[in-house]
Amino acid sequence: MTSKMESLVAIYHVAGEVSVDKVADFISSTSSTTRNEQTVGLTSKVRVSFLDKENSLLGIEYPLELFDPESIGVPQLISTITTNFFEVIKAASIELVDIRLPEGFLKYFPGPRFGIEGIKKAVASKGPLLGVVMRTSPDTLPAAQARIFYEIATSGIDIGMDPQYLTNQEFSPIEARASHFADMIDRVRGETGRKIVYAINITSRCDKILELAERAVDNGATALEIDISSTGFSALETLIRNGEFNVPIYVTGVYGASFVTLRRSVAGKIIAFIVRLLGGDIIARSSVSRNNYSVDELKEIDTMLKRKEGDILPAMPAAYGKIFPGSLEANILTFGQDQILVADEAIFSHPWGVQAGARALREAMDAIMRGEGVLMAAQTHDELKQAIEKWGYIPSPG
Amino acid sequence: MTSKMESLVAIYHVAGEVSVDKVADFISSTSSTTRNEQTVGLTSKVRVSFLDKENSLLGIEYPLELFDPESIGVPQLISTITTNFFEVIKAASIELVDIRLPEGFLKYFPGPRFGIEGIKKAVASKGPLLGVVMRTSPDTLPAAQARIFYEIATSGIDIGMDPQYLTNQEFSPIEARASHFADMIDRVRGETGRKIVYAINITSRCDKILELAERAVDNGATALEIDISSTGFSALETLIRNGEFNVPIYVTGVYGASFVTLRRSVAGKIIAFIVRLLGGDIIARSSVSRNNYSVDELKEIDTMLKRKEGDILPAMPAAYGKIFPGSLEANILTFGQDQILVADEAIFSHPWGVQAGARALREAMDAIMRGEGVLMAAQTHDELKQAIEKWGYIPSPG
Repeated sequence: MTSKMESLVAIYHVAGEVSVDKVADFISSTSSTTRNEQTVGLTSKVRVSFLDKENSLLGIEYPLELFDPESIGVPQLISTITTNFFEVIKAASIELVDIRLPEGFLKYFPGPRFGIEGIKKAVASKGPLLGVVMRTSPDTLPAAQARIFYEIATSGIDIGMDPQYLTNQEFSPIEARASHFADMIDRVRGETGRKIVYAINITSRCDKILELAERAVDNGATALEIDISSTGFSALETLIRNGEFNVPIYVTGVYGASFVTLRRSVAGKIIAFIVRLLGGDIIARSSVSRNNYSVDELKEIDTMLKRKEGDILPAMPAAYGKIFPGSLEANILTFGQDQILVADEAIFSHPWGVQAGARALREAMDAIMRGEGVLMAAQTHDELKQAIEKWGYIPSPG
Repeated sequence: MTSKMESLVAIYHVAGEVSVDKVADFISSTSSTTRNEQTVGLTSKVRVSFLDKENSLLGIEYPLELFDPESIGVPQLISTITTNFFEVIKAASIELVDIRLPEGFLKYFPGPRFGIEGIKKAVASKGPLLGVVMRTSPDTLPAAQARIFYEIATSGIDIGMDPQYLTNQEFSPIEARASHFADMIDRVRGETGRKIVYAINITSRCDKILELAERAVDNGATALEIDISSTGFSALETLIRNGEFNVPIYVTGVYGASFVTLRRSVAGKIIAFIVRLLGGDIIARSSVSRNNYSVDELKEIDTMLKRKEGDILPAMPAAYGKIFPGSLEANILTFGQDQILVADEAIFSHPWGVQAGARALREAMDAIMRGEGVLMAAQTHDELKQAIEKWGYIPSPG
């Protein structure tokens, strides 16, 4: 029998016709040497760590010999505690809701290189950061896109990101985009003294992603972006374990990558946690104003990004969806200051143009940080007032 | 305006508070040059291909210049037509339900190397194939596991697969497992003349998967297995586009890899289709007896695996879950003969042992192929009768 400290503990929520204690009984019974080990497969090696009937939670200890995160990698670990376990436990509805790794095991995971403090230092900011997805179309050359980013950044935005469809197409080669944005970042620095960051999207085949990362960084990229809903998190693992660049990694599509089959699922926060273990510095999740997940669910994601895990740095959440001047307060009151609030429509659809949109966000943020309140500030700032009139004011939930 | 043949058409099912024609109107409006292209981003380049209000379906044409499947790869394509599109279409519930690729574009996808006919040739079988997941535990050495497979194979099973948690751990190094199974496959061939196949699981980090594949094949592996729910399909892409081995690829976790966020989802059959385009020869899906998806949903997966797509070969479905002698008929009547029926419990938990379990499946299959019926055959075959008594008989659905 293995001790807790030599095991990984996976925590499952069990529902449906088979109760959590029945599942626990089944697992315990398979540890008996009287059963043929082929009949039960892996379950003969796992044991019940705890049973919480009230909350239908079941903790399962997996001996570490089953895993080899460094040489086989995270996919095999995930297959074991999800697909394989779900196959063995036939009758219940099961969701993987937490993973507890012994401290000695954490050393196999790189974790974020920058983390929350590193990101704040990279953009030289103390409060919550303002971000923008740099919407563009194939008719806009990289130079023009970067020039628009310059206007937005000088109007108060800290960090920009490529849209998810942009990687290295003919109309926007990655070298050109990386170097034009680097020029604009230098220009903002020279003119205002502000440090800003732009994430170049390298979402691509696993066997190309390292090359794209190098081409981006060699041309001045200050951050890299991956949509793991389409690459799988193994692309991130490949990048982190082989790449030698020193820029933050921004990861999107985290909830998209959570896999759900009927009655067998992996909570999105688990994917967020894995992304952190693998080295994501900034990890996208929904904003509270987007209103598509409960406040508790969103807070649990932040917990997974920030909780103590050996020497693994905390990762920075990036809030997506309905980020307007009128929704900043609700998001900051709910999640605190360690987050990036990523706007798109608030900037690109402000009635007075992108600079007005960016300034309205900055005015709202500054008012919040002064403790003044956004609605109060709107009385004396016309661009902010316009934004509140267009998109409204969302009070803090709860 | 692009013509249909120069575009990829993605078909979405739209539901919720915003109707499908409103979404179509929005997209059409953004093609107008009077709108600022930054405001609408990518939607200025796409157009409505068709609108089917009755079924809430919307076909969207994406110009091919947006994609570069060979050099950037499939992830960027998927990000564009899912995550990015879902972000742009803010208000509706959307599921990607089909992708139509122009024939000239298909050449960028390798497709299965073996396909259905190649698999049948590899196992020298004409009817539906019988498979087994070779459940094992870390206490069973690869030699012993292979020996049990020999007993099962000589009792009538055509193809074996590693369980999903087994890759290359210390207790089962991939070279040892591959070579012991190769020995047993040779032995079955020598003793019975039957060709059988065993898939070695190489689910691992993207940057390790090619090496594991080579080590498996160099040691005699006759097929390779990947769980894409944990690797992402990009691992398959990496393997296929770089590997030079000549064995079938068996892909599991396909439904697991379908990504679902609240109100934005990708149908599992789409993932199955992508896996086929990328070169999966055998693709796992639920059996009809498992009863967790509707018959129509399952049939749609098979359609995606088998429908005409230029020169891309059809892929073989592998039916999983509740495959017993008493459920073979229902699965074959529903999906026809081009499938693998993958058992585990029916073999490992047969009251008289694994050989009896395998023989009961073979007796049932032979009876079906003779047109005799399984219940009739059970009257004269004791092992089959035992299996029917234990697991029952499932009539064909509908």
